[in-house]
Amino acid sequence: MYSLIEELYPICRSITGNGVRETLDRLKRVVPIEIHEVSSGSKVFDWTVPLEWNIRDAYVKNSQGERVIDFRKSNLHVLNYSVPVREKMRLDELKPHLFTMPDRPDWIPYRTSYYKKNWGFCLSHNALLGLADGEYEVCIDSSLESGNLTYGEFFIPGETTDQILVSTHICHPSLANDNLSGIAIASHLAAHLAKTSNKYSYRFVFAPGTIGAITWLSKNESAAKRIKHGLVLAGLGDSGPLSYKRSRRGDSEIDRVAAHVLRLLGEKVQILEFSPYGYDERQYCSPGFNLAVGRLSRTPHGTFPEYHTSADNLGFVSSQALGESFSTCLSIFSILERDATFLNTNPKCEPQLGERGLYRMMGGTSGDNTSEMAMLWTLNLSDGTYSLLDIAERAQLKFDAIYNAAVALQQSGLLKPVASESDRPGQGA
Amino acid sequence: MYSLIEELYPICRSITGNGVRETLDRLKRVVPIEIHEVSSGSKVFDWTVPLEWNIRDAYVKNSQGERVIDFRKSNLHVLNYSVPVREKMRLDELKPHLFTMPDRPDWIPYRTSYYKKNWGFCLSHNALLGLADGEYEVCIDSSLESGNLTYGEFFIPGETTDQILVSTHICHPSLANDNLSGIAIASHLAAHLAKTSNKYSYRFVFAPGTIGAITWLSKNESAAKRIKHGLVLAGLGDSGPLSYKRSRRGDSEIDRVAAHVLRLLGEKVQILEFSPYGYDERQYCSPGFNLAVGRLSRTPHGTFPEYHTSADNLGFVSSQALGESFSTCLSIFSILERDATFLNTNPKCEPQLGERGLYRMMGGTSGDNTSEMAMLWTLNLSDGTYSLLDIAERAQLKFDAIYNAAVALQQSGLLKPVASESDRPGQGA
Amino acid sequence: MYSLIEELYPICRSITGNGVRETLDRLKRVVPIEIHEVSSGSKVFDWTVPLEWNIRDAYVKNSQGERVIDFRKSNLHVLNYSVPVREKMRLDELKPHLFTMPDRPDWIPYRTSYYKKNWGFCLSHNALLGLADGEYEVCIDSSLESGNLTYGEFFIPGETTDQILVSTHICHPSLANDNLSGIAIASHLAAHLAKTSNKYSYRFVFAPGTIGAITWLSKNESAAKRIKHGLVLAGLGDSGPLSYKRSRRGDSEIDRVAAHVLRLLGEKVQILEFSPYGYDERQYCSPGFNLAVGRLSRTPHGTFPEYHTSADNLGFVSSQALGESFSTCLSIFSILERDATFLNTNPKCEPQLGERGLYRMMGGTSGDNTSEMAMLWTLNLSDGTYSLLDIAERAQLKFDAIYNAAVALQQSGLLKPVASESDRPGQGA
Repeated sequence: MYSLIEELYPICRSITGNGVRETLDRLKRVVPIEIHEVSSGSKVFDWTVPLEWNIRDAYVKNSQGERVIDFRKSNLHVLNYSVPVREKMRLDELKPHLFTMPDRPDWIPYRTSYYKKNWGFCLSHNALLGLADGEYEVCIDSSLESGNLTYGEFFIPGETTDQILVSTHICHPSLANDNLSGIAIASHLAAHLAKTSNKYSYRFVFAPGTIGAITWLSKNESAAKRIKHGLVLAGLGDSGPLSYKRSRRGDSEIDRVAAHVLRLLGEKVQILEFSPYGYDERQYCSPGFNLAVGRLSRTPHGTFPEYHTSADNLGFVSSQALGESFSTCLSIFSILERDATFLNTNPKCEPQLGERGLYRMMGGTSGDNTSEMAMLWTLNLSDGTYSLLDIAERAQLKFDAIYNAAVALQQSGLLKPVASESDRPGQGA
Repeated sequence: MYSLIEELYPICRSITGNGVRETLDRLKRVVPIEIHEVSSGSKVFDWTVPLEWNIRDAYVKNSQGERVIDFRKSNLHVLNYSVPVREKMRLDELKPHLFTMPDRPDWIPYRTSYYKKNWGFCLSHNALLGLADGEYEVCIDSSLESGNLTYGEFFIPGETTDQILVSTHICHPSLANDNLSGIAIASHLAAHLAKTSNKYSYRFVFAPGTIGAITWLSKNESAAKRIKHGLVLAGLGDSGPLSYKRSRRGDSEIDRVAAHVLRLLGEKVQILEFSPYGYDERQYCSPGFNLAVGRLSRTPHGTFPEYHTSADNLGFVSSQALGESFSTCLSIFSILERDATFLNTNPKCEPQLGERGLYRMMGGTSGDNTSEMAMLWTLNLSDGTYSLLDIAERAQLKFDAIYNAAVALQQSGLLKPVASESDRPGQGA
Repeated sequence: MYSLIEELYPICRSITGNGVRETLDRLKRVVPIEIHEVSSGSKVFDWTVPLEWNIRDAYVKNSQGERVIDFRKSNLHVLNYSVPVREKMRLDELKPHLFTMPDRPDWIPYRTSYYKKNWGFCLSHNALLGLADGEYEVCIDSSLESGNLTYGEFFIPGETTDQILVSTHICHPSLANDNLSGIAIASHLAAHLAKTSNKYSYRFVFAPGTIGAITWLSKNESAAKRIKHGLVLAGLGDSGPLSYKRSRRGDSEIDRVAAHVLRLLGEKVQILEFSPYGYDERQYCSPGFNLAVGRLSRTPHGTFPEYHTSADNLGFVSSQALGESFSTCLSIFSILERDATFLNTNPKCEPQLGERGLYRMMGGTSGDNTSEMAMLWTLNLSDGTYSLLDIAERAQLKFDAIYNAAVALQQSGLLKPVASESDRPGQGA
């Protein structure tokens, strides 16, 4: 995953344009993503697909003809979605178009102006201080023209048509954690799950932030109804602990599963309440959809200084963090895949586990009995109202312990699956 | 308000009699209170309106003819509701009729005997110690005769017939905080609200404690059904932090609004659970009414040493405390007036706020965005089940921020009011 | 109770056999227990009543013919349910049949092998270390033959057929706390309650652990439906603080009552969540029964080092601890007996308590008013949805204070009982 990030890092992405196409093309080498183009001007709910933006070059040259700001060195130097410009101007005329971070004088900020026509350059504050008065040649060789918004999709059919959504934003230029990390993990998850046999169908959406998710939802309103659980993946490569932001529903199964998995990783993980700010969970959790979609990140966006700056570079992400994030996603999906509700076939008193080889043979000892406790809990609560996850939560045991107990008990005929979810009596939260 | 308290302070009030009439007459200069008289012997639920008590003078004279206890110096000197007496007696005969506070030897206690015929004098413990043996002339020039119980009422019609009740007890003689403070604030609230245009109708009740509230409820059973929210005002002039005592329901809208407003005042405020002891919330929250009526006070009654003593005097209350109490009441009413439930007209994905001038124009920054957050929360939760107060609580933002967001969003056509409360789906609290 | 424990201590009990019969016979001197025999091989739910085990003697003799392990010194020396054996063998052949506790080298462990045919001896680790190599004569003079499982039952009819179950396990040999303490307390509770007049019927079950409770439930499925509340009594004689383990339901009336009573005993008591491990609450709380049966213990089983060892002896239990446990049971039953729901006959405003002699006569004081507070709470909440226990919990007062208030109020005609539970409107937890 790290090498994929290295390869994608130099590309200048935006919410539309060839950078996005190039990125999705590269991902096709991981999984055969289907690419969709939606033309500029298309109405998508309250929004309109914008003009397509492309850029070839951009610079500010001083009077000696030296590029003092150079797009070729970092695509962050250009205010994303800058309209074309080719002018000469004095520094004081140029300054309103220059963006810096005085408190981080060596870093280049990342700025955009998608919905207001503007142009500008981003540079380090120290570089700004080094600019002499005088005349500068300003060039942004971009185009903002009717074209398309591009997004990618990958679908893995499962035993059921109920879907798990994985959505990740692809619109940021050279920012490694935000969000090449999400792109790398999502594509490799897709490759992994395409090789396994799954209960759920999986739908991966690689789309520009906000407008891309809105466009996808607009084109897939009925498909969205099949989404039972979902994760937005963003910022998964930094060295901070994992964090999970709950869906608007707050206590949906994905919320409970993610909290269960993260808690096993230790004390430092964060379980964050929903808020209507952040990444594309904002759209999936808008009231007209209210999907059970949470967000998995490491350090939450906006709370680390490198956020949206040139310091979110290849050194800011690590293979180790990517690996843990990847396996956490798989753990979450694995619980969703395996959670089920059973009926104890022998509900009156305990069954004789010993006779079935499921119990230690000598009474009176008090040694390790985690698996016995898991069996006892699973038998005790399998009255058709508790799922395995419910049992794990009440028993304060790992889901895997409860699941393994359920497998053993089912093999012994002591549990049978509840025929379908609709047979399951309601259980108060 | 402070000067009104100064004026009312010397009057000898009780649960009936001319002191109450004089007090209500004085309040007419603030608002045109309607005065009601209910005759002695009237049945009011389980109670009977008592005989009317009036007092002209009272004293204990020593053998030199000097007034050693003198009603003219403080009306607290007389056990309230004392029957007339005119006798000569030795100190040891008098002593069972003398009440002091040995632990606060300079203060005169306030005592009553409304429902058991008795007479007596209250005095400082030091004064008692100074009484020489010998014969004393005892005089209480009072009358306890068939008459009336007097209460005042002031009604401000609003756009709807749903009412907010403000109730305050008027039966205490020279006690400044308990409850001239409540009387002063209630009358000035009435004067203020009479000049504004309100959604709710407001009903102010100025009545003697317990028997007065019982009498009012007994005469206004059907009006009480229109009371949606209410506040008992008592003890609002001392220097302690504000406290709110929840209604019996515990989580009614007035309870949540008062808690919301008080919490903005800082750490020291107290939100007290309901108990069936205290002021007239006892009657409004009796199970046959169970009204959403809480109580606003500063330091709760009975928890400050000056309570029911001569030390609850004009120096114990301040204009500053009265002012804060007054504005807190207005803040509470203001939220009740403005709370409403809306529907997001564009519930699928976020609407494009920027296009409507509702959003910062440059992406990528992470500056102050309180008002944007308020808009996002309001849009996200306005599905017809969350009121603005519900949204403020979940978002942990100020009601005013949410309200202002809702106003802006409604002006932009992004919110519309839910037609009526009955259209609003139930939301589990 | 302590002397009963002393008398029962030497008997070698097991899940079947004459030790159990002898124990129950002895209890008949306390209460006329009815003894039931269920023959070996009977199916009881998933289980089969095992062969009956009896033992006359057991020993290991060294080459000098000395009993180095002697059943006559402690019945714990024999692995409970050992099959007969009479052999000579070398120490290394014997060792797999010897059980010790290396970390408590002076104590004999208690071990059983009910459901797997085996034989063995338990001894102190120091005694094991003292065994010289050489040949030993091994004898277990036991029988494992078709016979019966024995349990005792005692029923006390009450005014209603709703029952309170008291269940205690009787299968352990010389272990004082586990569970002669439970046996002693249960039998004396039975003797006590047989002499009083009760609302509930009481059913006492003295049965071997697990298989005994399963057998009883199997034979009494319809009787079990009448069990409204129940307690498993076990480990009630040690010096630790009392603990109550909730039923599977978690918030049933017995759970709330036991928590209420225990909290009055101070800080150290423990209220434990249900788990499907422990004593016979496992069976009563199996999902097919899900009875409101909790468990009262002192230090929970398995959490004290003496558990299931020879150190759980007569010195480990005390009369004082037994007495407190006994009176706690009675306090729990007493609340269950007296809990009821009333209607305030005068629900609109407070009734005039003073007129009825229920209230202090002089207003203005703020002395002790616990009983007045209890009356005010009882009147305020007696709307047919709150039981006296509910009121005590919300008022944070003792049940007895609320009960006494209710008695006084009922005598004054201010409360009337709700006709029956089915008249009582549901109250959300």
